[in-house]
Amino acid sequence: MFLSNLMPVKKAQKIIDSSLKKVGVEKISLEDAHKRVLSEEVTSQLNSPPFERSSMDGYAIHAEDTFGFSETNPATLKIIDTIGAGQVSNKIIKHCEAVRIATGAPIPEGANSVVMEEYTNSQGNNLEVEMSLTPRENISPMGEDIKEGDIVLRKGKILKPQDLAIIASAGYNKVNVYKKPNIAVVTTGNELVMPRPSINGAEIINSNHYTFKAMVESAMAIPTVAHCVDSHEIVENEFEKLLETHDALISTGGTAISKGDVVVDVTENIGEVLIHGVALRPGKPFGFGIIHEKPVFMLSGYPVAAIVQADVFVRNSLHKMQGIENEPQIVRKIASRKIPSSLGRTDYIRAKTELNMVKPLKIKGSGIIRSMVESNAYIIIEENIEGIGEGEECNVLPYDSLTV
Amino acid sequence: MFLSNLMPVKKAQKIIDSSLKKVGVEKISLEDAHKRVLSEEVTSQLNSPPFERSSMDGYAIHAEDTFGFSETNPATLKIIDTIGAGQVSNKIIKHCEAVRIATGAPIPEGANSVVMEEYTNSQGNNLEVEMSLTPRENISPMGEDIKEGDIVLRKGKILKPQDLAIIASAGYNKVNVYKKPNIAVVTTGNELVMPRPSINGAEIINSNHYTFKAMVESAMAIPTVAHCVDSHEIVENEFEKLLETHDALISTGGTAISKGDVVVDVTENIGEVLIHGVALRPGKPFGFGIIHEKPVFMLSGYPVAAIVQADVFVRNSLHKMQGIENEPQIVRKIASRKIPSSLGRTDYIRAKTELNMVKPLKIKGSGIIRSMVESNAYIIIEENIEGIGEGEECNVLPYDSLTV
Repeated sequence: MFLSNLMPVKKAQKIIDSSLKKVGVEKISLEDAHKRVLSEEVTSQLNSPPFERSSMDGYAIHAEDTFGFSETNPATLKIIDTIGAGQVSNKIIKHCEAVRIATGAPIPEGANSVVMEEYTNSQGNNLEVEMSLTPRENISPMGEDIKEGDIVLRKGKILKPQDLAIIASAGYNKVNVYKKPNIAVVTTGNELVMPRPSINGAEIINSNHYTFKAMVESAMAIPTVAHCVDSHEIVENEFEKLLETHDALISTGGTAISKGDVVVDVTENIGEVLIHGVALRPGKPFGFGIIHEKPVFMLSGYPVAAIVQADVFVRNSLHKMQGIENEPQIVRKIASRKIPSSLGRTDYIRAKTELNMVKPLKIKGSGIIRSMVESNAYIIIEENIEGIGEGEECNVLPYDSLTV
Repeated sequence: MFLSNLMPVKKAQKIIDSSLKKVGVEKISLEDAHKRVLSEEVTSQLNSPPFERSSMDGYAIHAEDTFGFSETNPATLKIIDTIGAGQVSNKIIKHCEAVRIATGAPIPEGANSVVMEEYTNSQGNNLEVEMSLTPRENISPMGEDIKEGDIVLRKGKILKPQDLAIIASAGYNKVNVYKKPNIAVVTTGNELVMPRPSINGAEIINSNHYTFKAMVESAMAIPTVAHCVDSHEIVENEFEKLLETHDALISTGGTAISKGDVVVDVTENIGEVLIHGVALRPGKPFGFGIIHEKPVFMLSGYPVAAIVQADVFVRNSLHKMQGIENEPQIVRKIASRKIPSSLGRTDYIRAKTELNMVKPLKIKGSGIIRSMVESNAYIIIEENIEGIGEGEECNVLPYDSLTV
């Protein structure tokens, strides 16, 4: 009937993508860089290790002095020095000499191998070596891990603990990252009240306040949450004020398609509405616009519709604004029962996965938050598919893959 | 040779598990509860929705008034009132009457269905309905989402955006969660310096400082990082001081097995060493002890050994201290080439997964941070397995599954 006016999901995603701008870069302390996003590649200033080092606790020696010797016929050497971690030896090791060395310490001049302590006996300066060593044994070459000039990490990388280790080893205590976007969340609706133990009349608890604050956090951006009643003037003033200091705005409510609704009207008035109504279920009354060159995502008031719209259109946008390329990881699973769908509409069906199977939830309705809590994945039925038969494979998007 | 003295990994994990205590609970604002861990179940104080509500924009009517009518032969009704979201109507709807109603608004008395606006035409007070409705159509029953007294979430749940929504809808603006553990990280080693563009002599950059601060953060705990040179007295004083205000301590360096090493000595002196040396590669010189009833994890100085030890022994412990049950998700993949291993030792081999395959990295060595950066999973070879053949299935632990 009116489906034909709705924009296909993929087309809407393309329009949004082409409207996004990265939020700029900043140099921060490496201390604070966990889970931040590299804005440029990191090139090592150093070799790591910066010298030939011992990979074991033991003795630095000439391997040749042990050739042919064994546990029953040990080689006999003389200990001439000891090097702890952080120390260097000035001694040059001659044949049949040994320097006691700690793991990680620099190999002294002359030595070409390290015998592990476990294969030796020592008494005073006398050392017995109970094995035959190969030259270079237990020696880590200079630059084995990183060489000066190596590119150790690429732009766009979300920094894990080990990534910080390699940046430190490359010689840096600061790092260039994308700024975190500041995102305004505006819930709208006369009926909304904050949580309380009892409610009156037509009041509804404003759960979106919490959902979208947390969703912005989970997309590694910084949320500010506000609420407006359904007044054109109040919403417009709030949008204008918040967009001065924020990189994007997410609203909930006021997006009905069949009538002029307040949020869409405001966006039309002070900016441009690029999308209003998408061929998505749940989530049809989604809007997207640009106000003062900043993206405005207009979500439904109904909690589940709004979450699906955010998962389909907003999360990835917040990622892209901070330089993260995270394509949702769709997996294939077998449907545990028949799932009907209509041509011309993309369905996001709340479902529960178990091993290779996926089971669509029975509870439906775009207001049923419980369905989002009890599910762990979407079954996605693209608009050119009329439904999935029992036992057929289908596309599944686990919720865990939505976050980075 | 000396492998027989090393403790099997599973036995060490059991000893650690039985030494851990949860860190207590706190009541926090729901605003701040994203990714926190529920310390008790949540029971709803409310019905949600709290009344029968319209699931569409349209008109509340008696379904019977439309029976047999259609687009070509519409029913004719009279509009007697309008209800917006947040409003209630005092009118009682009689036969052939209609009340204009917004999505989410309470159904007025008398009506038993809602016709979508799209299937109507209106002029003034006259309404044409172009379809035949079923009783209850487009009406969401009271308590459809949550009923008063329902348990909506269980203890131990890590709160996602939608979980906050259901807690709010259950009537709460505060929530009881486990406290985040305060974790002291102490790096040790005379040779360690902070990152700089050039280094001298036997200096090594202290990458563990960054790695383990971030690892504690990634386990949702709160880190404090300190550094000590290899002095029994200095390390002991630092341990004593930090354990007064922290729930656990993680150290790096000073855990060599073949000699009395400083960190293990200190723990022995002021507490009890329960584990020293495990049948794990890399990561053999791992220690665990209890000082003043608090767990002390003694990791190697070498970066990769320390990361593996933390992934095997520390992460899960930090999770358990805050009530999170996160068993690492081991998956089965096909080895792209032969992987040798020794009986009596658990190997954690850095590897890269691709679809159903897993490829062990060629770069080895417990100092090679690059191997942790370029891999995305461990191949785990248990101690009773002598190696994996090319094309054989093996156990793989993706790094992503280590975090919650």
